[in-house]
Amino acid sequence: MLLFVCLFALLFSSSSHAADFCVAKLKGAGNPAGYACRMPSKVTVDDFVFTGLGVAGNTTNIISAAVTPAFVQQFPGVNGLGLSMARLDLAPAGVIPMHTHPGASEVLFVVQGKITAGFISSLANTVYVKTLKKGDVMVFPRGLLHFQINDGEINAVAVVSFSDPDPGLQITDFAFFANNLSSELLEKSTFLDDAQVKKLKKVLGGTG
Amino acid sequence: MLLFVCLFALLFSSSSHAADFCVAKLKGAGNPAGYACRMPSKVTVDDFVFTGLGVAGNTTNIISAAVTPAFVQQFPGVNGLGLSMARLDLAPAGVIPMHTHPGASEVLFVVQGKITAGFISSLANTVYVKTLKKGDVMVFPRGLLHFQINDGEINAVAVVSFSDPDPGLQITDFAFFANNLSSELLEKSTFLDDAQVKKLKKVLGGTG
Amino acid sequence: MLLFVCLFALLFSSSSHAADFCVAKLKGAGNPAGYACRMPSKVTVDDFVFTGLGVAGNTTNIISAAVTPAFVQQFPGVNGLGLSMARLDLAPAGVIPMHTHPGASEVLFVVQGKITAGFISSLANTVYVKTLKKGDVMVFPRGLLHFQINDGEINAVAVVSFSDPDPGLQITDFAFFANNLSSELLEKSTFLDDAQVKKLKKVLGGTG
Amino acid sequence: MLLFVCLFALLFSSSSHAADFCVAKLKGAGNPAGYACRMPSKVTVDDFVFTGLGVAGNTTNIISAAVTPAFVQQFPGVNGLGLSMARLDLAPAGVIPMHTHPGASEVLFVVQGKITAGFISSLANTVYVKTLKKGDVMVFPRGLLHFQINDGEINAVAVVSFSDPDPGLQITDFAFFANNLSSELLEKSTFLDDAQVKKLKKVLGGTG
Amino acid sequence: MLLFVCLFALLFSSSSHAADFCVAKLKGAGNPAGYACRMPSKVTVDDFVFTGLGVAGNTTNIISAAVTPAFVQQFPGVNGLGLSMARLDLAPAGVIPMHTHPGASEVLFVVQGKITAGFISSLANTVYVKTLKKGDVMVFPRGLLHFQINDGEINAVAVVSFSDPDPGLQITDFAFFANNLSSELLEKSTFLDDAQVKKLKKVLGGTG
Amino acid sequence: MLLFVCLFALLFSSSSHAADFCVAKLKGAGNPAGYACRMPSKVTVDDFVFTGLGVAGNTTNIISAAVTPAFVQQFPGVNGLGLSMARLDLAPAGVIPMHTHPGASEVLFVVQGKITAGFISSLANTVYVKTLKKGDVMVFPRGLLHFQINDGEINAVAVVSFSDPDPGLQITDFAFFANNLSSELLEKSTFLDDAQVKKLKKVLGGTG
Repeated sequence: MLLFVCLFALLFSSSSHAADFCVAKLKGAGNPAGYACRMPSKVTVDDFVFTGLGVAGNTTNIISAAVTPAFVQQFPGVNGLGLSMARLDLAPAGVIPMHTHPGASEVLFVVQGKITAGFISSLANTVYVKTLKKGDVMVFPRGLLHFQINDGEINAVAVVSFSDPDPGLQITDFAFFANNLSSELLEKSTFLDDAQVKKLKKVLGGTG
Repeated sequence: MLLFVCLFALLFSSSSHAADFCVAKLKGAGNPAGYACRMPSKVTVDDFVFTGLGVAGNTTNIISAAVTPAFVQQFPGVNGLGLSMARLDLAPAGVIPMHTHPGASEVLFVVQGKITAGFISSLANTVYVKTLKKGDVMVFPRGLLHFQINDGEINAVAVVSFSDPDPGLQITDFAFFANNLSSELLEKSTFLDDAQVKKLKKVLGGTG
Repeated sequence: MLLFVCLFALLFSSSSHAADFCVAKLKGAGNPAGYACRMPSKVTVDDFVFTGLGVAGNTTNIISAAVTPAFVQQFPGVNGLGLSMARLDLAPAGVIPMHTHPGASEVLFVVQGKITAGFISSLANTVYVKTLKKGDVMVFPRGLLHFQINDGEINAVAVVSFSDPDPGLQITDFAFFANNLSSELLEKSTFLDDAQVKKLKKVLGGTG
Repeated sequence: MLLFVCLFALLFSSSSHAADFCVAKLKGAGNPAGYACRMPSKVTVDDFVFTGLGVAGNTTNIISAAVTPAFVQQFPGVNGLGLSMARLDLAPAGVIPMHTHPGASEVLFVVQGKITAGFISSLANTVYVKTLKKGDVMVFPRGLLHFQINDGEINAVAVVSFSDPDPGLQITDFAFFANNLSSELLEKSTFLDDAQVKKLKKVLGGTG
Repeated sequence: MLLFVCLFALLFSSSSHAADFCVAKLKGAGNPAGYACRMPSKVTVDDFVFTGLGVAGNTTNIISAAVTPAFVQQFPGVNGLGLSMARLDLAPAGVIPMHTHPGASEVLFVVQGKITAGFISSLANTVYVKTLKKGDVMVFPRGLLHFQINDGEINAVAVVSFSDPDPGLQITDFAFFANNLSSELLEKSTFLDDAQVKKLKKVLGGTG
Repeated sequence: MLLFVCLFALLFSSSSHAADFCVAKLKGAGNPAGYACRMPSKVTVDDFVFTGLGVAGNTTNIISAAVTPAFVQQFPGVNGLGLSMARLDLAPAGVIPMHTHPGASEVLFVVQGKITAGFISSLANTVYVKTLKKGDVMVFPRGLLHFQINDGEINAVAVVSFSDPDPGLQITDFAFFANNLSSELLEKSTFLDDAQVKKLKKVLGGTG
């Protein structure tokens, strides 16, 4: 047994980094690989468990839908482990609008209800759309535009997971209309009509 | 419009590879990055959808549990996208025995029931165990021993996802007892008693 | 000298793969890491040289702009090397419309003229816009929406490079309006008005 | 010469990070990519040299063997460089028990003596075992169970290297029996008999 | 709209790391993945723009050439984004001497003039040389020796980009002759004559 | 037991790729990630064992030294596993000349004798040199110039390992003098004297 004591003492005595895991210190500065690790001695099982996905998101909003993330910012145990999760709730007619995850692929599992989901390939703009029922899985390749719509009659719930702890989320409508990007530049670069741009900027709180 | 036609023609005319996705040709030879891509022209939305997780696995077996994978071998659409999924079914007292995924981290979402899950760190052999209820999520860092047990009174169901399309699965009992590894080498390298080894080899079909 | 002859013979005699480079066989099947390598004995310096960026793209089109790619499909020498290039030509008022590269970051160097370029962060939808003059460089982080506009009075030319041999290109207008995605799904998932959708589908050749 | 002075001044003047190397500051916080870099001006050749593998490990213990690591924690020069080393000493009948490295593949070179080594694939639990003599090399793919036994009559010595500066080490016996994992959970998840579990927990210092 | 406010608040409220970008804090300690991120709230568009490549480098030196880098140390916006740029100026007969980038591939675009460029493969030492004219592109695979020479009659200008924010630069002459490496070791390891070594050490400021 | 049979059948039935390993088919076409995998059913333990490093290389040559590689081309079991090995033999005064590995870092373990080894950083051309005795380890960061010299009185033997199955090897003398690179270009790009170039081209078989 001396060997083992000795071995483990040598391997891990003075270090806050371990090959096994790297629970994020969210207050510290991140870097391109994620967040700094908390000392293993301060890590407990609760750092590897996230309970926030057990509660339905509030779908009383204009899209009748909600996204509840379990990304590294909410769930620091996934830091450096190459994956994360989220929960989607969609009331009937609810929609997760067109969006991309700049840094991750996504798989979706339908827990309840019926979801029509699709993505658009950059290759000839081909559209891949399917209505998914409970238990079905769909994959959305990294960086591509995709959406989910509840066209059933009951609330739909899905669990999605990502190939990165910090997948990002860029909703096209928000990127276009919920900031101060000038209408002129936006119209020139999207060919959308001025009236359309003004209307959606108003709805989503944009200026310019 | 000429530009676009021209641009897209240039970019993608003669190629079976696209940045967007790479649906696996499973019959062909794999390589360290995964499988060869099918021609995009032969890809349909059904390559990105997997319906096999909607059906409960058969838990009438010695572990009262079942794993239904949606790895690249079953779900070729995830090839090269850095993730995959599986479904766990555990009857009451069912167990997914101690195992590792040699090449991936895992997150588990409890769809139904109550699951006690745990993993063991290589750092001081620390154990992280928790009883999870419906909606809870737990992460199992890559390569570490972990297990799941249904200690509730109803069937438990979980969706797990992995940080690799081909995470592998090494169940320790099977690695030790379900092959022709000689009892002598096994006993020397595990300190298990001969009677224990012989007993489990018999149960799991091992020889030697 | 015997050593060296011997050494090199051992190292490389029967192999079509070399650590040094992997010029793409574009006709063969790709895989998640890129294309298969051509035999080094068939590779010449011309595989590492691309002359297509020396010629201005044709900007006589609706966007008064052109993109000339030197991606792996045009320039097989970059296969596996983690980068690629393209040339942008913009007549006065020309625009490279809002787009993303699903798998790569981009840097742009202004060779001639004046270009207003911008990208939109997924973080609070912040807009980063700047008018660039000859010699200026701007970086567009991977997967984010961005655009370029010539608001000068002469033709603008830029060289852009990417962090991947096959960066992909998803022009939002084309993804939305140049395919058979149904107007109903598109409108639900983007909140665009039906008239706007129909108008742009007509311009860009979309149906549905 | 002015150019060069100027060039090097520009490139590296105010930075503690260099493309070349990143010697670990072990006291600081690690992150998913490893440890923070020490300032290059404080780095000496001794940071790139490790002398601890020249001394035989103490094999007077229950396994008659010893592992002497040169991982990043002992040898900070390998930080970020994708490899590390260790020395194995095995007295006659000594054994490095069944274990995995959660984050790395391993190659073993026999410096002295005769070692029987093996690993178990997750694919059909196939066993790959071989008795290696001085000068032989064997590779153990990442994350798989493997072991080494000295079945010769003299001390055996091996040098092993890993595909990661921080490969981790999970000895199955220690993971099972040298902590507070409850006997009940352990027995349920491994099918080992209670007597076996109790016996090995006692030997290895476990509780529960 | 409540959803969105809620969603974005959850995702990004207390964090200095974002999936989108990671502008380098150059004064802090780097790590194997690059530099720590600046707080997004302190980032402006100017962090993503670099104006230093618009000015010709000073070629009044022994090589009649200049390299102006836009690496992460000069252009912190590229941190973590997998690319960087530089500008080459070569007066007639100017030369960028034999060198490697230890951690990156390079593509070169000729903006003006005529450049003879070449690289040497490790595979049978094959030489790939070509005279490039304005608009031509050449790729230099990672880690291989290469050079550029202006054999035209006017100043040549090129833009080069790299597959890493911090590609490194090792000029062979400087590595051999511009330091205190002892002439004895250098001569033994390069077979260069003592007179040659002494002469170049004198020119380049080396000792020993 | 039905579960397991079922599970393993599902997971691996029709596939030649496994997460566990990917023994190289060297005759087939490589790709940027390595070589295609052989069918696991055709793989034996001998694919994971290499016996070629047990024999001393022939040092009767101009450098009084020999390199015996166990790279993927000789040792197909390391394909895709991120590492490889080699053996160095140096007679007294033998030298492994200045060289780089374009795609890998290296660690060296002295098995016998005394070796003076060094590398040169691209950062201010700093030289790191040390005389290593039996059992010492030294690391050479990826892509940097380094060398090894036996300045002891007996044969020296070292085992080196690399962070890539196919690290490449570019010996500067061979890159400069053992091919048809024109003396004119070589002299311009290295500042070596014509006499020196001609002399070494003659020794090493170069032309031009």
